[in-house]
Amino acid sequence: MRDVAIIGIGQTKVGEHWDIGLRQLALQAIQAAIKDAGVERADALYVGNMLSGELTGQEHLGALVADFAGMQGIEAFKIEAACSSGAAALRLGYVAVAGGLADVVLVVGVEKMTDTLGPDVTTALAMAADADYEAAQGLSFVAINALLMRRYMYEYGYRKEDFAPFTINAHANALNNPYAMFPMRVTAEAYAEARMIADPINLLDSSPVADGAAAVVLAPAQWARRTGRPIVRIAASAVGTDTVALHDRRNPLLLEGATLSSQRAYQQAGIGPETIDLFELHDAFSIMAALSLEAAGFAPHGQGVRLALDGEIGIQGRLPIATMGGLKARGHPVGATGVYQVVEVVQQLRGQAGANQVPNARVGMAQNIGGSGATVITHILERME
Amino acid sequence: MRDVAIIGIGQTKVGEHWDIGLRQLALQAIQAAIKDAGVERADALYVGNMLSGELTGQEHLGALVADFAGMQGIEAFKIEAACSSGAAALRLGYVAVAGGLADVVLVVGVEKMTDTLGPDVTTALAMAADADYEAAQGLSFVAINALLMRRYMYEYGYRKEDFAPFTINAHANALNNPYAMFPMRVTAEAYAEARMIADPINLLDSSPVADGAAAVVLAPAQWARRTGRPIVRIAASAVGTDTVALHDRRNPLLLEGATLSSQRAYQQAGIGPETIDLFELHDAFSIMAALSLEAAGFAPHGQGVRLALDGEIGIQGRLPIATMGGLKARGHPVGATGVYQVVEVVQQLRGQAGANQVPNARVGMAQNIGGSGATVITHILERME
Repeated sequence: MRDVAIIGIGQTKVGEHWDIGLRQLALQAIQAAIKDAGVERADALYVGNMLSGELTGQEHLGALVADFAGMQGIEAFKIEAACSSGAAALRLGYVAVAGGLADVVLVVGVEKMTDTLGPDVTTALAMAADADYEAAQGLSFVAINALLMRRYMYEYGYRKEDFAPFTINAHANALNNPYAMFPMRVTAEAYAEARMIADPINLLDSSPVADGAAAVVLAPAQWARRTGRPIVRIAASAVGTDTVALHDRRNPLLLEGATLSSQRAYQQAGIGPETIDLFELHDAFSIMAALSLEAAGFAPHGQGVRLALDGEIGIQGRLPIATMGGLKARGHPVGATGVYQVVEVVQQLRGQAGANQVPNARVGMAQNIGGSGATVITHILERME
Repeated sequence: MRDVAIIGIGQTKVGEHWDIGLRQLALQAIQAAIKDAGVERADALYVGNMLSGELTGQEHLGALVADFAGMQGIEAFKIEAACSSGAAALRLGYVAVAGGLADVVLVVGVEKMTDTLGPDVTTALAMAADADYEAAQGLSFVAINALLMRRYMYEYGYRKEDFAPFTINAHANALNNPYAMFPMRVTAEAYAEARMIADPINLLDSSPVADGAAAVVLAPAQWARRTGRPIVRIAASAVGTDTVALHDRRNPLLLEGATLSSQRAYQQAGIGPETIDLFELHDAFSIMAALSLEAAGFAPHGQGVRLALDGEIGIQGRLPIATMGGLKARGHPVGATGVYQVVEVVQQLRGQAGANQVPNARVGMAQNIGGSGATVITHILERME
């Protein structure tokens, strides 16, 4: 197996892009990544996307994006794993380069969620859950997360306002990210007064529906060395899955897929959570941030919220999370999110995170979650000296 | 790179399965393949599917199928490349095993196209074409193929009835395939009188909308050797792409993506078309069969129909095609088709094709086409002595 490096990154601003469509979003991210990598060709293009068919009437995104990007002829597929589609595409790109089946692979995550054809986005997102046993009963995705949050508060004795630090941290970090959708200061008062969506989840617990695309270029680390630029290698790429339906889990508050995914990643990288300098987690809802911190081994069960309350999650804290805004404030164009997370880890490891730079960041982790924890994909990146 | 073998195959009957859904279909094929392979576990599950979200409100098929098959925890993704989704999943399974990133990979293609939620299947299938520049103009998928067929007849001077041998051959072969949807004898008269759908394409030029699932188990060929069973190795796995929109091609009658895909496959296998003993081609419409034969090098341009007229495509002919019924008569559950094709090639190479056995079959090729030729995936399989 070959060491794989991320030699180029690109992203569009996350937001409501009423003026451009799916293929243009993908192209902008691809062009930026290719320019950053300094490459002229790729062997394959893997597109992470969840809802192109449902929301814009377009499947066959692999060939479509390859075509629009002027790469006709190239191997190209769409990879889908609900909200973890972006990291799934990255995982398969990693497999191809690590195994020697391809040298340069372009991975783009893209989602167009506003200004779409039907169905409504809430209905479409529920396709990440079990259509027959959850969605058909009227459980929307936010409702599933509301059940989890309510249970967490009950089990561990937290109050609603204890979740505020996740939101406050994410939006504060977004202030310094030009690609973030909601760069704005959020106060504890604003959080307390935010409109309720599915009790106890309010508007400021939820990541926004958005359009966006992010891309990375993968190549053997040996090649990257020749460029003389800072090298970020993929120290681990791992997947864990769990039941799709929440009611099939032994304990819904244990994201067992996330634990499996994290443990596989730590084992592959030969490190433990204590070595991670920053963690781009899947804060689609505040409760997911808490559960994810616990499942990945950064806090004991029931203590994920405590980590945030204790001020450990800021840029200067013990474990910086959502360093460029996270899903909450950078935005969550679902199939693109996993690639955004990795792009941001690369920015940190290269020392290109500006005012949000995590001091001496050498090892970063990104974890992308599909459904309510059914697919969990973890990448650990390392800056090579 | 390691040699990869197909050590197990499974399939459901293709048809209108009003009594079971997507996950049950997938499970039946998986159970059959696992039993055939004699394995107890897999490292990854790749699901080829195009329209689960649009037609049944279910994305996130990787985790869902893994869960339903009792494989919680396993790496699992859905791979989409329009009607070539099945072969795309196989391609990525091949990459994982060949590169040494996984030892046993389960690949299942599944599609549920009848008894669905909206939209109608014609609208859904048009998502394989360019949504903004083809589908939005009212071009359905059959209409796109009708344009191709009309142009072919004009350019090369064929009559409509010259295409009949493709249909007659496919249905005759389906008679001996218990998994085929339409095992029935079709005559030249029936073809001539068939109801017109999109002139010049009639009902007997078109593959049927159907439900079905097929699966294969991949493992290193070295492992397969130990089992003492006949070994079928993947001699080549190759992808070629082209523009999604027909109007963007230099010559719509040249499937350049198919030529690229075939040439890459021949190069990888170190053989040419003359070595192929049977060809499972993508006869979604009669015209696609003709164009595919030409693009893959089995006939000069304009001579694909001639090959059929000359009786070369039967089981005893120079190049047997659609040996178990093809898309036309076995049926075309779109995301499953690419896996069905490969399952059928394995049946032939193992000598398990019953009354349709191609004599001395040693090398077989399967070609799965997405859209009107935008994604073309070719697998060459070889029986090892």
